[in-house]
Amino acid sequence: MAKNDAPKTAITPTRNDDYAEWYQQVVRAADLAEQSPVRGCMVIKPWGYAIWENIQRSLDLMFKATGHKNAYFPLFIPKSFLEKEAQHVEGFAKECAVVTHHRLIAGPDGGLIPDPAAKLEEPLIVRPTSETIIGAAFAQWVQSYRDLPLLINQWANVVRWELRTRLFLRTTEFLWQEGHTAHATEAEAREETRKMLEVYATFAEDYMAMPVIKGPKTAGERFPGAVDTYAIEAMMQDRKALQAGTSHFLGQNFAKASGIEFQSKEEKKEFAWTTSWGVSTRLVGALIMSHSDDDGLVLPPRLAPAHVVILPIFRGDDTRGKILEYIDALKKELCDQRIFDRNVEVEVDLRDVRGGDKQWEWIKKGIPLRIEVGLRDVESGAAMLARRDRAPKDKASVPRGELVAKVVETLRDMQAGLLEKALANRAANTRAIDDRAAFDAFFTAKNADKPEIHGGFALSHWCGDGACETAIKDALRVTIRVIPEGEIPGVGASATVFEQGACVVCGKPSAQRVVFAKSY
Amino acid sequence: MAKNDAPKTAITPTRNDDYAEWYQQVVRAADLAEQSPVRGCMVIKPWGYAIWENIQRSLDLMFKATGHKNAYFPLFIPKSFLEKEAQHVEGFAKECAVVTHHRLIAGPDGGLIPDPAAKLEEPLIVRPTSETIIGAAFAQWVQSYRDLPLLINQWANVVRWELRTRLFLRTTEFLWQEGHTAHATEAEAREETRKMLEVYATFAEDYMAMPVIKGPKTAGERFPGAVDTYAIEAMMQDRKALQAGTSHFLGQNFAKASGIEFQSKEEKKEFAWTTSWGVSTRLVGALIMSHSDDDGLVLPPRLAPAHVVILPIFRGDDTRGKILEYIDALKKELCDQRIFDRNVEVEVDLRDVRGGDKQWEWIKKGIPLRIEVGLRDVESGAAMLARRDRAPKDKASVPRGELVAKVVETLRDMQAGLLEKALANRAANTRAIDDRAAFDAFFTAKNADKPEIHGGFALSHWCGDGACETAIKDALRVTIRVIPEGEIPGVGASATVFEQGACVVCGKPSAQRVVFAKSY
Repeated sequence: MAKNDAPKTAITPTRNDDYAEWYQQVVRAADLAEQSPVRGCMVIKPWGYAIWENIQRSLDLMFKATGHKNAYFPLFIPKSFLEKEAQHVEGFAKECAVVTHHRLIAGPDGGLIPDPAAKLEEPLIVRPTSETIIGAAFAQWVQSYRDLPLLINQWANVVRWELRTRLFLRTTEFLWQEGHTAHATEAEAREETRKMLEVYATFAEDYMAMPVIKGPKTAGERFPGAVDTYAIEAMMQDRKALQAGTSHFLGQNFAKASGIEFQSKEEKKEFAWTTSWGVSTRLVGALIMSHSDDDGLVLPPRLAPAHVVILPIFRGDDTRGKILEYIDALKKELCDQRIFDRNVEVEVDLRDVRGGDKQWEWIKKGIPLRIEVGLRDVESGAAMLARRDRAPKDKASVPRGELVAKVVETLRDMQAGLLEKALANRAANTRAIDDRAAFDAFFTAKNADKPEIHGGFALSHWCGDGACETAIKDALRVTIRVIPEGEIPGVGASATVFEQGACVVCGKPSAQRVVFAKSY
Repeated sequence: MAKNDAPKTAITPTRNDDYAEWYQQVVRAADLAEQSPVRGCMVIKPWGYAIWENIQRSLDLMFKATGHKNAYFPLFIPKSFLEKEAQHVEGFAKECAVVTHHRLIAGPDGGLIPDPAAKLEEPLIVRPTSETIIGAAFAQWVQSYRDLPLLINQWANVVRWELRTRLFLRTTEFLWQEGHTAHATEAEAREETRKMLEVYATFAEDYMAMPVIKGPKTAGERFPGAVDTYAIEAMMQDRKALQAGTSHFLGQNFAKASGIEFQSKEEKKEFAWTTSWGVSTRLVGALIMSHSDDDGLVLPPRLAPAHVVILPIFRGDDTRGKILEYIDALKKELCDQRIFDRNVEVEVDLRDVRGGDKQWEWIKKGIPLRIEVGLRDVESGAAMLARRDRAPKDKASVPRGELVAKVVETLRDMQAGLLEKALANRAANTRAIDDRAAFDAFFTAKNADKPEIHGGFALSHWCGDGACETAIKDALRVTIRVIPEGEIPGVGASATVFEQGACVVCGKPSAQRVVFAKSY
């Protein structure tokens, strides 16, 4: 027996000990991002940014396949533009970075101050979202029904001033894409809103291996200025919900505010119907929290910056050349394989670092597969293969002739396995709850002194009244995440969405259950 | 004879009539970008943004192939960071967008005002460039010589407040990439500076079909805070120079300002040596001005958003299906062809617009090839092929069996032809000038009343004294664009760079000629 029976983990604390701190430590150990000296803004480090690049590339292809084109609009929004839509400005005014000057000059104490002579007549807002500035452009571009639909996407940075921030999950500046479309009819705009929600759901499940529930938000959780907001919601391993993407049907609100008018086929002036939809670097946070374990990051192969790391094991300089030659040939062959619409990406770690440390670094970085090659492997024509979703010591010798096919097959297997595991986690922690006392107990930690994973998704009845929603929020910090429009796969008979019942708060009749949860 | 002998052009005015206005009209006619309601900021429209995406993708591969990794740093720079390097802040303080507040509240007259209670203790600057904020991160990341070299690139937006702006060429906000690297030795950092200059030069010539002269800038034209600035300079069709990319050797200036220190192999604390290098959406402006003609945009196929547009010619509904079927098969076959490391990209224009108008739209958008397909073509098994670098009416019938190969071959031919043409233009307008009177005449328009293309690159001797440089600048608005380090290909015997001579201003001895020009 080992001296210490408790299994050691690479991340301290573990998920069970302190989930919030575990998250920070996973981000740090995988070298994904760090706090910057600018309050609330993060530095996205290469391994973290590479995940975002893979997310970007995949989504960008999906957007283009659905007829959207990329464009770019100004970072700054004149204050008067933001003021055009009343609910919109109400929603964003409290968290705006405001540019007031366009020059610095030497101040009285030698340092620089904003030059009073360079004060802007109208302050500029660093975009928190771009409906108003893009609306102004659309108003120019759209004249006739022939110009519609207008299907635009922008990849950009946005700023929403946040007091409490967490890397990737909530930062003052974040990276995102924002789709903005204009249509001739309400039906077409509604169809677009749903189509993009569907794209997000497909991306979450097929690429991120993260199951999501999709549907409309309640009125209280709508995007400021939207008629309807739809979202995809995922369950993290601490059983909290994370809103991973939103798609908004904006009605004619922004078209009226920005003057997006067109001449219809019947030669009448009409306002366009618009939508907007977005996902952000928050998805990286969702990815981390969906799959990682107490040894660090776990990545779905489809979005991993690299699929395989090859770790040479050198024993003396005289065999080094032989091992490197073997590795080179293996790498070349692996890199020629296609998987998930790209080539297999391989790292070879030749750094002068102890083998064990190296191995643990890659485990913590979440690389899907590790291949160790020592002299014995070269001589026997094999290599040791280890997968990130198994225990660190679980390695198998694979004959060289089978290795390349095995790598591709294992990557596919891991991608599917991660989704299954996440689905099982969601199913295990989703409950139909019809009784307020049980509801309260579900969302109350057993040990109030210590952070503790509890709760999950409560499928409960709700009468539709905002007051009942608020009562739950105030009492438990639990909100209605989404109003599901279909049964929730994997949840089983315990949670039937569509049946008559009574609101869990007031007891009034309700035609379907909704998803209640604590959330990020 | 036609009523009007003067050939009609799609763009008014022509290059010769008013080059600056011609440029604006080309941008507008190709639907590349437009002014936004935010002073000095542009909206990049889909066709223009697609060119930038192609530039990005190509450069990104080149950066990765040379060992660089992408990362992302904050949009905002604390004022105190900018102040750390004296020359740097001196260079940028005058053109900074300054964020002073993080909230808006209702003002006395009902509109919103920056909330005095939400005034930032320290103003934030919207990054004009990121040496200082990235330097702060590098100071954390670099501990030992083992952490070096650190090779990072960022794709981002930056803001430099400009009073006189021109789409793509000079805008308050622009998109760019900025490479930032840190090295253990001066020699390595100098090698990196040159390597990236070489990458830019290769990109300019091989992708943009734009010949460039590379070499150091004079002290007066250096990046604020750099020890040496190198640039690639291209000649536009109006014979002005455009600085298309810069690579800076920063010495230890920024390492000292930011505290980027490392433990050397000899266990001594040393400051790192850093570099930075960048290109921006200005390249789109350079691309436009290098190749376009009086009918609008001309694009090198390697960076064109699409290579081919297929224009159906319908005469009555009964043959429509037949034509569309023919086009579908052709499109499919074309899209399977590889060229310049991507698939041939094909647009099919089915809009209900007059054929002639459609054709001219695509000419103005600079699509390399147009293929017209009418019933006669379908029946004879052929199609009409027209190339953008020939006269609009110069079309040839190509048998269907040869068409696909012909498309690929023609695209290659066009890419090479554009570079040759640009090289010829540069050679024709580069002169060795040793006499001040001739120098002044070269840079003086013949007709002072009317914009007029004149001048070019003067290869002249310069003694190295900043006073002589300033004298020329003040007299003629002509600057030293670059100090060439090799002969200039295609310029011929008339312009030998390396020979002894006398400064064109003061007559003092000079060992080589430099490139003088008016510039963007």
